[in-house]
Amino acid sequence: MKLDELRQQVLEANLEIVRQGLVVDTFGNASGISREQGLIVIKPSGVAYENLKPRNLVVTDMEGQVVEGELFPSSDLPTHLILYQSFPSLGGVVHTHSRFAVAWAQANQEIPVLGTTHADYFYGPVPTTGLMEADEIETDYEQNTGNVIVRRFKELDPVTMPAALVTGHGPFCWGPSVPEALRNALLLEEVARIAYYTLTLNSSAPTITQPLLDKHFLRKHGPSAYYGQKQGPSAKP
Amino acid sequence: MKLDELRQQVLEANLEIVRQGLVVDTFGNASGISREQGLIVIKPSGVAYENLKPRNLVVTDMEGQVVEGELFPSSDLPTHLILYQSFPSLGGVVHTHSRFAVAWAQANQEIPVLGTTHADYFYGPVPTTGLMEADEIETDYEQNTGNVIVRRFKELDPVTMPAALVTGHGPFCWGPSVPEALRNALLLEEVARIAYYTLTLNSSAPTITQPLLDKHFLRKHGPSAYYGQKQGPSAKP
Amino acid sequence: MKLDELRQQVLEANLEIVRQGLVVDTFGNASGISREQGLIVIKPSGVAYENLKPRNLVVTDMEGQVVEGELFPSSDLPTHLILYQSFPSLGGVVHTHSRFAVAWAQANQEIPVLGTTHADYFYGPVPTTGLMEADEIETDYEQNTGNVIVRRFKELDPVTMPAALVTGHGPFCWGPSVPEALRNALLLEEVARIAYYTLTLNSSAPTITQPLLDKHFLRKHGPSAYYGQKQGPSAKP
Amino acid sequence: MKLDELRQQVLEANLEIVRQGLVVDTFGNASGISREQGLIVIKPSGVAYENLKPRNLVVTDMEGQVVEGELFPSSDLPTHLILYQSFPSLGGVVHTHSRFAVAWAQANQEIPVLGTTHADYFYGPVPTTGLMEADEIETDYEQNTGNVIVRRFKELDPVTMPAALVTGHGPFCWGPSVPEALRNALLLEEVARIAYYTLTLNSSAPTITQPLLDKHFLRKHGPSAYYGQKQGPSAKP
Repeated sequence: MKLDELRQQVLEANLEIVRQGLVVDTFGNASGISREQGLIVIKPSGVAYENLKPRNLVVTDMEGQVVEGELFPSSDLPTHLILYQSFPSLGGVVHTHSRFAVAWAQANQEIPVLGTTHADYFYGPVPTTGLMEADEIETDYEQNTGNVIVRRFKELDPVTMPAALVTGHGPFCWGPSVPEALRNALLLEEVARIAYYTLTLNSSAPTITQPLLDKHFLRKHGPSAYYGQKQGPSAKP
Repeated sequence: MKLDELRQQVLEANLEIVRQGLVVDTFGNASGISREQGLIVIKPSGVAYENLKPRNLVVTDMEGQVVEGELFPSSDLPTHLILYQSFPSLGGVVHTHSRFAVAWAQANQEIPVLGTTHADYFYGPVPTTGLMEADEIETDYEQNTGNVIVRRFKELDPVTMPAALVTGHGPFCWGPSVPEALRNALLLEEVARIAYYTLTLNSSAPTITQPLLDKHFLRKHGPSAYYGQKQGPSAKP
Repeated sequence: MKLDELRQQVLEANLEIVRQGLVVDTFGNASGISREQGLIVIKPSGVAYENLKPRNLVVTDMEGQVVEGELFPSSDLPTHLILYQSFPSLGGVVHTHSRFAVAWAQANQEIPVLGTTHADYFYGPVPTTGLMEADEIETDYEQNTGNVIVRRFKELDPVTMPAALVTGHGPFCWGPSVPEALRNALLLEEVARIAYYTLTLNSSAPTITQPLLDKHFLRKHGPSAYYGQKQGPSAKP
Repeated sequence: MKLDELRQQVLEANLEIVRQGLVVDTFGNASGISREQGLIVIKPSGVAYENLKPRNLVVTDMEGQVVEGELFPSSDLPTHLILYQSFPSLGGVVHTHSRFAVAWAQANQEIPVLGTTHADYFYGPVPTTGLMEADEIETDYEQNTGNVIVRRFKELDPVTMPAALVTGHGPFCWGPSVPEALRNALLLEEVARIAYYTLTLNSSAPTITQPLLDKHFLRKHGPSAYYGQKQGPSAKP
């Protein structure tokens, strides 16, 4: 992908998280990566969304050195870098302060799989990282925010679980491209919201069964997918 | 009804469930049936709503064989087919992932009749289907989704109860026409939402009495209806 | 007030309760009275709000006999009539199915005075009527809906308490004029909503003290009011 | 700052709290101060927001004597005066009836620091004042509303805690300028809302640790701030 196109996608994602109400003020940030060129495009730090122009976006190398742009990059850049370095499948990262996802992160509760809306996008409970230690906060905080996510994913697959809730902070979402990372951020909020309503209505609501989780996730993702217009051989008419 | 008109109604219903916030992403689908011609019009699978054009709609026969349209039909088509085959009064079916209705489906709780807003449209508690069995999920899942609804309606009347909550999934609504199915989907969400607020406020809120349920449902529906402008002989001035 | 002006106010109130999200579908209705002429203007029954024109409004006398208009009046007209007959101070009545007010009505709980937002408009807990008896429902239902409100107000003043929650149904609001009835309907929903949040957050939240209730209600209403631009002699600069 | 500019900022803040849904009806008010001139600009009392024009704003001296404007000032002016007199760092004060902040005020619960969204703007729990005494209400009520806030801040710093919840009433927010006071009002509502969701989901949700609170507040505020585009020497690339 050309850098100009990536820049356009990152700008669009940063604007869309505002339009969709996933952030207020200057919270939140979206980035994208060109794996071939080893370049990352990210939102500048603390700039009002309404003033964001393509040329304000910051381009850095894989170590976070600015190679293009006159503004400071988002202070969360080190978190994005760790995610890109650790999860080779990532094409985009979107961090929001969306209300319900943040509520689960603050409650320090993973989001259980209560229904097929969840199962269509997240192949299991959405994990929380747990509270960070004092020394992780005091030194290299933003980098360690990435590290606690990576540590939590030791036994999880970032391809089938495209989101993490940093305890006491909020969601980081990703995907193979910037638009897919954006969609996962939007859907995480939707799933978090419905799960909130479900559990406040019935605190012993059942999680769905493994066959139902498999059915929904795998009919949209993976080799036997038959949802949408690129349907495999097992697709039904 | 001409197929062109049905096609227009189905398109409109699919667009309206997005406008009304009953679905996000590509979730949800609406269909309509021409009983005379034995033809069903349904949304294509996984197509972004903003790109939906009349010619994208898929027309199938009663067994789901595509007779018009170049795209795959919604993967939920088999569910719609079972509903049309089993409930002869149906003219339209609308499936959404609307938040509060899904929360009740995930909570696996039928929506009790807590007030007249509910009684005006749903003549009793809105039923849940219960969890599906592993074999129902693994083979012919979408068809079995229809089957569990039909099984649940053995002692219910789809004319006076135009909605079902598939446990762990979400609502399927219907009506004698596509616009009426759409309205029932919208009102189910409203009823589900107010019932949520009611029970989280007072977990022992009373259900309304049978006379009040009868009064409200029957003043809008059936032979003695006196609500609206087509009023029967018992209508008051 | 001229009938044309009243007609315009009633139309506006009926449209505004839709715009403000206080009703969906064809729920809800607003009316106004010309005491001099003994005439009531009310919404027709079951007409879609988007099609409502001034000439669709129905004009009746104090007994509900239609004197102008070609459509049937709202089926809730008998409730409005009882309220106008029993409470001489009323100039307008607004009935909505607004979500939080309905939730309190369904919960059969009066809204306690939890704060000054409430105290500014409602001089005490907003009362519920209790469930109606079977015979009150089966015969002259809409008239009896008015009667249970009037009965509940035996020891309440409709001037300082411009709203009632009909248990299992929803709110009826009123005021000395149609715009004031409309405003009370809007503020009741706001008060009901914040009270819901308050009590689900802290089920033993304190009600405010009598002095604070007096202070807020009386600085806006009554002879010593000093809020707004028509300030009495006790007003502070 | 010129008075004209301040007037413009105060008008804009009063309109923005309506646009952002922080008030309904004529609730709420924003003011600003010119410390050099000893003049305060505030909203007039009980004027509909849609009719508010720059020339309607009222200018008073530090004792509340009107020096410009034909309307009565907001009845909450005495509260604003006490805050400006007691907290010399204040450039603007914004009082709203925003739903979630009011719910916490009515619940008489301080908002605990449950996450970094809170820590970015409020350096500790957002305090409640406790209920006011009868004599504080009956005499000089609005002035005493300011006094209970000031009393509560005996051991708090209005620079790092730019908000207070008056029990049974609602939030008063402030900042070094009118736009910053406005932003704090908006963010307080956001923080109050997410905290509500968090605690209704998990009533024993953990508060964040002191190091995390320090990290987030101090990276945005104070001498070592490195968030945004005016970054100090300790800023990371």
